[in-house]
Amino acid sequence: MIAEIISVGTELLLGDTVDTDAAYLARALTPLGVRLYRRVTVGDNLDRLTEAIQTALGRSDLVITIGGLGPTEDDLTKEAVAAVLGIGLTLDADHAAWLREHAALRGWTAVPSTYDKQATVPEHGRGIANPRGTALGAIFEMSTKAAICLPGPPNEFVPMVDDHVVPYLSEKLSGTGSIIRSRTVLIIGLPESIVEERVLDLIGSTNPTVAPYAKLAEIHLRVTASAESNQAADLIITPVVDEIASRLGNSVYGYDDDTLESVVVGLLTAQGKKVAAAESCSGGLIAKRLTDVPNASHVFDLGIVAYANEAKISQLGVPASMIEAHGAVSPEVAKAMAVGIRRVSASDIGVSTTGVAGPSGGSLDKPVGTVDIGVAWDDNVYTERRHFLGGRADVAYRASQAALELVRRLLVEGALD
Amino acid sequence: MIAEIISVGTELLLGDTVDTDAAYLARALTPLGVRLYRRVTVGDNLDRLTEAIQTALGRSDLVITIGGLGPTEDDLTKEAVAAVLGIGLTLDADHAAWLREHAALRGWTAVPSTYDKQATVPEHGRGIANPRGTALGAIFEMSTKAAICLPGPPNEFVPMVDDHVVPYLSEKLSGTGSIIRSRTVLIIGLPESIVEERVLDLIGSTNPTVAPYAKLAEIHLRVTASAESNQAADLIITPVVDEIASRLGNSVYGYDDDTLESVVVGLLTAQGKKVAAAESCSGGLIAKRLTDVPNASHVFDLGIVAYANEAKISQLGVPASMIEAHGAVSPEVAKAMAVGIRRVSASDIGVSTTGVAGPSGGSLDKPVGTVDIGVAWDDNVYTERRHFLGGRADVAYRASQAALELVRRLLVEGALD
Repeated sequence: MIAEIISVGTELLLGDTVDTDAAYLARALTPLGVRLYRRVTVGDNLDRLTEAIQTALGRSDLVITIGGLGPTEDDLTKEAVAAVLGIGLTLDADHAAWLREHAALRGWTAVPSTYDKQATVPEHGRGIANPRGTALGAIFEMSTKAAICLPGPPNEFVPMVDDHVVPYLSEKLSGTGSIIRSRTVLIIGLPESIVEERVLDLIGSTNPTVAPYAKLAEIHLRVTASAESNQAADLIITPVVDEIASRLGNSVYGYDDDTLESVVVGLLTAQGKKVAAAESCSGGLIAKRLTDVPNASHVFDLGIVAYANEAKISQLGVPASMIEAHGAVSPEVAKAMAVGIRRVSASDIGVSTTGVAGPSGGSLDKPVGTVDIGVAWDDNVYTERRHFLGGRADVAYRASQAALELVRRLLVEGALD
Repeated sequence: MIAEIISVGTELLLGDTVDTDAAYLARALTPLGVRLYRRVTVGDNLDRLTEAIQTALGRSDLVITIGGLGPTEDDLTKEAVAAVLGIGLTLDADHAAWLREHAALRGWTAVPSTYDKQATVPEHGRGIANPRGTALGAIFEMSTKAAICLPGPPNEFVPMVDDHVVPYLSEKLSGTGSIIRSRTVLIIGLPESIVEERVLDLIGSTNPTVAPYAKLAEIHLRVTASAESNQAADLIITPVVDEIASRLGNSVYGYDDDTLESVVVGLLTAQGKKVAAAESCSGGLIAKRLTDVPNASHVFDLGIVAYANEAKISQLGVPASMIEAHGAVSPEVAKAMAVGIRRVSASDIGVSTTGVAGPSGGSLDKPVGTVDIGVAWDDNVYTERRHFLGGRADVAYRASQAALELVRRLLVEGALD
């Protein structure tokens, strides 16, 4: 099945909105074996929208539109698809009644005349429920082709893809005998060139394919197989993933939807240990990343963002004389911060960052991007000096990444056993 | 001038990469008066790429491609554009020599035969320097049309747009007498429906246009004028922006590239005050957002992420009996946390969050998304209970937004004078 995505909205052409929906949908389509050859973006303009739908339906089996389902006169997508396909739209009376109630609850005295558009459904096909918004989605069905219309707001769009589009297409495609399945190996601590070098022979293969992607402070290797079933695909993928894992060892931190923070929380939970963070240049990001993981409360009690020297002294027990002698950005201070937060929080591991986030504050000796990272456990403290490129937020992110990686290494290598 | 963007890369069609480049470029083109009617994305496939270039050149004055300039066999964009336009490519000898040196520095023993592709430039037009990468960009010039090829990695792409594409197009367009300019009014604390209601008459106007965009926990109103010069555009925009500001009052927190955190840091700096944060459910995000602003170190000394009850008790002086009696998520605890962090840090303002971030931990009384926010100053403490929708990260973000907004209101209303 060949598909095309049409994103609709002038805000996309003005660059006000980044099209995360289309990427999300593409990720959902690939494992189903749907081949996406093209994506098109047009504004809220009926002529260009209609032309895009016509062209897409001419060369694809499935067209999925994103956006333009709202109540205003600018929202034209469902009507344009209906017109191109020659399929009528009828009012879903229940949804129309719910819309009126909803408007009344919001205290609207007059409902715009275009408001009911949100409740129309195709005569051949069906509506798609939208529990987080007011506009129904739609599936238009013809004998050999189909079109699906989804709303643009990501919080409405994502659950509609997961709960309706994927099941609908899975059923439609079941038994067609060609699926694409992939697994992503997540790698940290090695430069892209080294990763490529070590797996260069695998990158040359065709089924599975192996493709490297450089992400911020990590490398992903995506292993993709085409096969007749998920089981057959796994038989192709697994040996290659295992081979990559054996070549790259502990630099592989996880797979697929893992994140460095979810892996660290998982390791801490499994080993029954707790971590605490004393952050300067990472500004709370280590705490934020750890607490984004469900159940982080079992392994993370306390983070201190000690931005000022006084805070480092009073909250973490860093000696004022040490800051005087070595500067706030120094291995000595990173060490004292890691030991300090471990003591204050009574955690098993203390981790710390102190650095020059920029744009000012750099020196010849310690240019912007210089970061000292510390990690303390049992009677040990380890520090590492790194030099990061990028703006303030980049430096903070890379510092948090390096700190979490030090914690992961400790746990993986069994230092706390 | 009508333009079209073609993004090239199979990773975009697999959804592995979100196309931030295209949005960045669109934002750069709009103020120049370049009208972008369509964006197209194709994979690393010569036939579909060629067809996309042909179609785009047929209906637009300018085509800008993103991606596919690298050294591998998959990288076909510059060659495809050259073929469609019938313009030859020649080798830039200096750049080719530099490429060899660069490869040698990286310790490569053999340079791939396709490596020199990165050094070719159009016979009609010129190359574009790429100080952050290895592949040159290209400008192809014909009598009435032009095509520009840029590399995909954002750290290479963005400076090439800023330093070369924008100046090139500005010069080309100077004196053509039509520019588009816009200003965005940033609004917080009012629902979209209320914002729309208050400016409904302005939304109907045509020059400037006024368009609302709902963002996470805030609303943006974009005011866009078309005119012969920047000055003429400003004369059209300013009265409307002023009118919006007067209707929405303190709910307008800033303009254009302001962020809530940059506005808060600005107000604190201007008033010579400091803030400190005690965070539970926002998990460090208040600290992170404040410290992302340059010079935050003058107004933010200390943040404590007190995730565990013991941390709230020992670090912030929240009485254990209070947690026992009211629960960790309660206005009482939010109040004690805000007062506690203000005292510990000796700051002018203490702000706090405590809530149920989910996915578990909710109750009938305090469902997931329940957040108590506190702010303490002088002898005062104020708390607010909010109920947020969304996942863990959404709840954390909305909590940080509400907390920063409370701080902004205090400062704007002169409570600390």
